Amino acid sequence: MPLDQDLRIAIDGKWRHVRVAARQELAEMNLAFNHELSMEEARERTLAQLKDLIPTGIPAAGFREENGGGGDPGMAVTGIEMLAQYDLSLMVKAGVQWGLFGGAVQNLGTERHHTLIPDIINLDLVGCFAMTETGHGSDVQKLEVTATYDPATEEFVIDSPTPNSRKDYIGNAAKHATMAAVFAQLITQGENHGVHCFLVPIRDKKGRDLPGVTTSDCGHKGGLRGVDNGRIMFDQVRIPRENLLNRYGNVAEDGTYTSPVDNINRRFFTMLGTLVRGRVSVGGAASAAAEVGLTIAGKYALRRRQFERGSGEEVLLMDYRTHQRRLLPLIAKSYAYRFAQNQLVARMDRLQRAEEPDELEQRELETRAAGLKAVQTWHAIQAIQESREACGGAGYLTENRLVLLRRDVDVFATFEGDNHVLLQLLGKDLLTKYAKEVSGLDPMGLAMFAASSFATSVKERTAAGALIQRLIDARSGRDDESDLLDRGTQLDLFEVREERVLDGLARRLRKAVKADPDEAFRIFNNAQDHLVRAARVHIDRVVLEAFTAGIARTEEGEAAELLRETCTLFALTTIEDDLAWFMGHNRISIPKAKEVLPLVNAQCEKLRPFTEDLVEGFGVAWGALKIPILTD
Amino acid sequence: MPLDQDLRIAIDGKWRHVRVAARQELAEMNLAFNHELSMEEARERTLAQLKDLIPTGIPAAGFREENGGGGDPGMAVTGIEMLAQYDLSLMVKAGVQWGLFGGAVQNLGTERHHTLIPDIINLDLVGCFAMTETGHGSDVQKLEVTATYDPATEEFVIDSPTPNSRKDYIGNAAKHATMAAVFAQLITQGENHGVHCFLVPIRDKKGRDLPGVTTSDCGHKGGLRGVDNGRIMFDQVRIPRENLLNRYGNVAEDGTYTSPVDNINRRFFTMLGTLVRGRVSVGGAASAAAEVGLTIAGKYALRRRQFERGSGEEVLLMDYRTHQRRLLPLIAKSYAYRFAQNQLVARMDRLQRAEEPDELEQRELETRAAGLKAVQTWHAIQAIQESREACGGAGYLTENRLVLLRRDVDVFATFEGDNHVLLQLLGKDLLTKYAKEVSGLDPMGLAMFAASSFATSVKERTAAGALIQRLIDARSGRDDESDLLDRGTQLDLFEVREERVLDGLARRLRKAVKADPDEAFRIFNNAQDHLVRAARVHIDRVVLEAFTAGIARTEEGEAAELLRETCTLFALTTIEDDLAWFMGHNRISIPKAKEVLPLVNAQCEKLRPFTEDLVEGFGVAWGALKIPILTD
Repeated sequence: MPLDQDLRIAIDGKWRHVRVAARQELAEMNLAFNHELSMEEARERTLAQLKDLIPTGIPAAGFREENGGGGDPGMAVTGIEMLAQYDLSLMVKAGVQWGLFGGAVQNLGTERHHTLIPDIINLDLVGCFAMTETGHGSDVQKLEVTATYDPATEEFVIDSPTPNSRKDYIGNAAKHATMAAVFAQLITQGENHGVHCFLVPIRDKKGRDLPGVTTSDCGHKGGLRGVDNGRIMFDQVRIPRENLLNRYGNVAEDGTYTSPVDNINRRFFTMLGTLVRGRVSVGGAASAAAEVGLTIAGKYALRRRQFERGSGEEVLLMDYRTHQRRLLPLIAKSYAYRFAQNQLVARMDRLQRAEEPDELEQRELETRAAGLKAVQTWHAIQAIQESREACGGAGYLTENRLVLLRRDVDVFATFEGDNHVLLQLLGKDLLTKYAKEVSGLDPMGLAMFAASSFATSVKERTAAGALIQRLIDARSGRDDESDLLDRGTQLDLFEVREERVLDGLARRLRKAVKADPDEAFRIFNNAQDHLVRAARVHIDRVVLEAFTAGIARTEEGEAAELLRETCTLFALTTIEDDLAWFMGHNRISIPKAKEVLPLVNAQCEKLRPFTEDLVEGFGVAWGALKIPILTD
Repeated sequence: MPLDQDLRIAIDGKWRHVRVAARQELAEMNLAFNHELSMEEARERTLAQLKDLIPTGIPAAGFREENGGGGDPGMAVTGIEMLAQYDLSLMVKAGVQWGLFGGAVQNLGTERHHTLIPDIINLDLVGCFAMTETGHGSDVQKLEVTATYDPATEEFVIDSPTPNSRKDYIGNAAKHATMAAVFAQLITQGENHGVHCFLVPIRDKKGRDLPGVTTSDCGHKGGLRGVDNGRIMFDQVRIPRENLLNRYGNVAEDGTYTSPVDNINRRFFTMLGTLVRGRVSVGGAASAAAEVGLTIAGKYALRRRQFERGSGEEVLLMDYRTHQRRLLPLIAKSYAYRFAQNQLVARMDRLQRAEEPDELEQRELETRAAGLKAVQTWHAIQAIQESREACGGAGYLTENRLVLLRRDVDVFATFEGDNHVLLQLLGKDLLTKYAKEVSGLDPMGLAMFAASSFATSVKERTAAGALIQRLIDARSGRDDESDLLDRGTQLDLFEVREERVLDGLARRLRKAVKADPDEAFRIFNNAQDHLVRAARVHIDRVVLEAFTAGIARTEEGEAAELLRETCTLFALTTIEDDLAWFMGHNRISIPKAKEVLPLVNAQCEKLRPFTEDLVEGFGVAWGALKIPILTD
């Protein structure tokens, strides 16, 4: 089998059958983005495309079988990734309808709501996910919309009390949604029980706002033209008591509130946690978009020539050292993230099929999804940008897709959780992981965590742990004599860095234990960049380990060998990016450090002949690449 | 006077009067981009706006007085920078018409062509600058369009012999231009004399292609909707002999070629050199766009709150450490680039007013413009991107401008010279600077340059040299005891780094002297990343010195003090970005290196209270900031 096919098998992962089918089925659907459409036309086209997807089984996959779904969460996320190769508007609109809106109904609702799921799957009911407000996007515990229970009529009254409480940027809200899953402060018997989710009809069948509901249109955006983002204001809108999605909190006819989770913070984060698939999908879709961009730039660099070499022949772009340095490390990172994403999806799938998912594992899934989403979306922005620049003026023409990919993926860095906020979430979770108290986002709780427990917590591994440890133990030399090309050395460097960064962070934050709230805020705020860094170096380790484990699962041969070399480039460039840290903490000596740059260059040279195989390995469907820059 | 006004005076520079007038005049013109327009409407609007600019004197400024111009090159470039605050389409279309097309006529033409200039200024003649071809964008010496002289009719025959020879991405060519300044291989008496520029009428008054000319439309692009980029093919189009812009090469009636510059390479680069204003304008405009983006993000961060601190109050985004680290170093860099740009414009202005500009100074101006253009455009992309992300979902709405700025500025990295190619140009020039032979881009010539001459060449300074040397000599300590906050220490670090990088590069390239062409290519190619790096560290030094010199010219007081602190942040973050190099080359010890991160954080904290002053100091006109995110 050709090398690129073997690579594809290696990184297609457990849901390879979904990818193979999707490459076939989606290719027949004319999904390629049409940039000549007006905003209105683009929105209608995307809705029509959603309908075409129903027979593929991707929309149903994420719902449980007993509710009429396919019972295959891994397929749902993998299918979304495949859509992302064609058009991110389509991916986002699918994610809003089936992932966020449908996911809220399935995961936050109970039997009485699950009857809606068949209609959600087949688009007879189009919904939106109305969480973000103008005034609160990241801090969603502080949402202002209220849902006040009126026992007299057994209804909730949904209300937007201030201009800032307007629901904002909501996908499907400008036009297509007839129902909203509205997040609002639940108030009953005079008490606020925190944010819960309610089903609120917002439009009639003719698309007119229902009484008390005022929708409006966010209009033109940086990208995602096919998605109708909008705003919603509620003026004392009454809905039946039963419209509360009541899995984690219920209100009886008389207004009595009950919940299986007592702590108000913990309840809120438990609810959010059930929606983890959104972040997993967004990270995977961003990675898919990065792969499309790098495929375009890689293929272009293998056909475009510029400037003559000594002997008179014009040189392929890909033969230039700078071009290799621009593209190959990004390609290597895309491989790394694919393995990490495959591992994450498998874990999510397992947990979502479980009757009683382990709480610790669930929490770890959430924070890993948060961290991976952040690095994958930034990687996508960077990779597509570099790809655009590497294609010069041709890359700037809309017909060649790169600028559209770049536009569409841009918002991925700030939606489904702002990346900086997500990395802080992960950083805090790394700190509190083994502390007894699950303290939500309370900074005081964090400081109670003692640094001494890090060593064990960090090393705890769920995947391929024994293999990783074996590689580390067998590494060729220590410190000054270490061989930077040795995987064990690399794994060790990544692991030690994470330990040290976390350890330093914990020591800085300990002072906050006895501080007053303002002083504690100051201490935490001063360490905020350190916290974000802890999350980043953790994710680096997780990704390198996933890559290593993924190679171990690949059949020995040329593809496995090429993956090893690709993994080495990923490890080396990650080390290069943070070389000052490794030197400053005596993990890489000065003479060793000077080897890094030549090693990276040599690794690029080694991978250069495999550029075509590597981009073909991503398996981007040809239908997503029918652009003049590659076909003329 | 308020602090922000003093800052503005300091960075407005020599053409402050132009900025002050433009803030007033442009504000009255309704230039703000309207994103609701169709592509066609946007193009017509931009053309109409160009007409409105004529009375400001900005269009005429770049032309010599004897040709009907204003004779003020510095004003021309500064005016373009001011347009860039409002709309980059307007800036680019102005640059194409008056800078590139008009500049070609003025600088490459002679008396007989200069009669066109009044019509060019007042838009009775709209032109385009037809250099780039589909097949050759960076390597423009290899353009394929031919201009073959026919002595029988005393005409040139302009022809596009291959599909790749199509003129491509040409601003104004899709619609508005009636004449093109066409770059083509001049062939007469059977000999090719290299690329020259010819005036070729392409459309009649009704906008129809003239016989033999086929124009087409590049259509939608990544941005710059108001600019009609197009393509041109020539099929044996005949133009009078006099349409050759013949300042640097002439063809007599009988076909005899003469030129004041014998060497074909040198002639070509001399011609290009006269068009340096394009790169100076593009760099300045990109910096202006960055300032707009940072002003929006800075002001938003001073009004937006999210998450509560200990005492219950919601925290301003700008009070978060991560937010400070995201925005303040970019703001400091924008200040640094403004001083460097002001210095560059003053130098360009002086040279372009000179009767006999010094050849070495002209060459230095060109390469400095190339290098600054590269770093300024990348800075703009990064700064606007960070600004967009820092404004979250609101930043993604088109109405808030950031995504449009981002789109428009994107192509600045690859037009008017691809940034990577420009940095290599600068790197090569640094190497060959004092070598006798001006060898164009011939790598063999480069290797003849001996490393020993670097020390003097690098230290040669044209601006404020004595001040810089005094600061370096007076620095507080050497090496291990050095105070990283001391300007002399910083200047010394930047200078030593440049020397060492250049020295290492030259040593690597010496081997190429005796190599055969293919081996020489390999040696140069392997050092390509090193070459780019040499250019970057050179520009870092130039910028820090310009900042230092600019502060010295600022009246003592609060503004000068704030500029000093801002300069320190720029220097520290530049050092931080390359810390591994300084450590690896024993310029910063390990203990010293560990101080850098805390120093950067402390510097951000110090500047935090001056965020509003700093962004107001940029002097972005209020008309360019009337967006919902800042006004609602």
